[in-house]
Amino acid sequence: MYEAISLEQKFSLFSERFQPKVVARMNDYEFKIARAEGDFIWHSHPDTDETFLIIDGEMRIDFRDGSVSLKAGEMFVVPRGVEHKPFAASECRIMLIEPVGTVNTGDQPRGERTAPNGVEL
Amino acid sequence: MYEAISLEQKFSLFSERFQPKVVARMNDYEFKIARAEGDFIWHSHPDTDETFLIIDGEMRIDFRDGSVSLKAGEMFVVPRGVEHKPFAASECRIMLIEPVGTVNTGDQPRGERTAPNGVEL
Repeated sequence: MYEAISLEQKFSLFSERFQPKVVARMNDYEFKIARAEGDFIWHSHPDTDETFLIIDGEMRIDFRDGSVSLKAGEMFVVPRGVEHKPFAASECRIMLIEPVGTVNTGDQPRGERTAPNGVEL
Repeated sequence: MYEAISLEQKFSLFSERFQPKVVARMNDYEFKIARAEGDFIWHSHPDTDETFLIIDGEMRIDFRDGSVSLKAGEMFVVPRGVEHKPFAASECRIMLIEPVGTVNTGDQPRGERTAPNGVEL
């Protein structure tokens, strides 16, 4: 009836990169997990902050005027409206926390890097 | 300028049990870390869900009609209004995600178990 959500188990269910999957909801927010590898695209989220929590591995978030390097057990909140580009030299497992409906490519035109929203594991 | 938030480093800054500390904000939500050990009190949050993410150790959340056991890498969202009682046999490090202003003792009269809100690390 009450069941723990295991991130490891959820990660075992997919292998795509930069395609966030919903593992839990809290009010009108979603917890998504994703595998990051290589370069994502520059984008921003004009209406919301976006939280990155690193589960395993390392990644970097580039900004137009700097960057932040993150490893397992670290987190960062990208402020709304700030252009950023995630990058991981090798596979990195992350959790994203953001409002329901937040699109992974943000303010950019939808394209091949745009992941479908609301895909639940 | 852009700095990673290290949960391990933040945990090194306090030792109290069941006294959540704010490590990050996202929109009108807070990320809090806490050390759980022993029994907390029965309470509910009438206006919000509350997310538990286990960073290290194990804990249990009791409900009036069941319970959920959680260990590192697992999470659970307690729905709004649902009475619950956290318990950890030995120290467990957790992250809580919830709206700014959420009180740890929820709907219960404020007392010695009520932690001050908005304490930042």
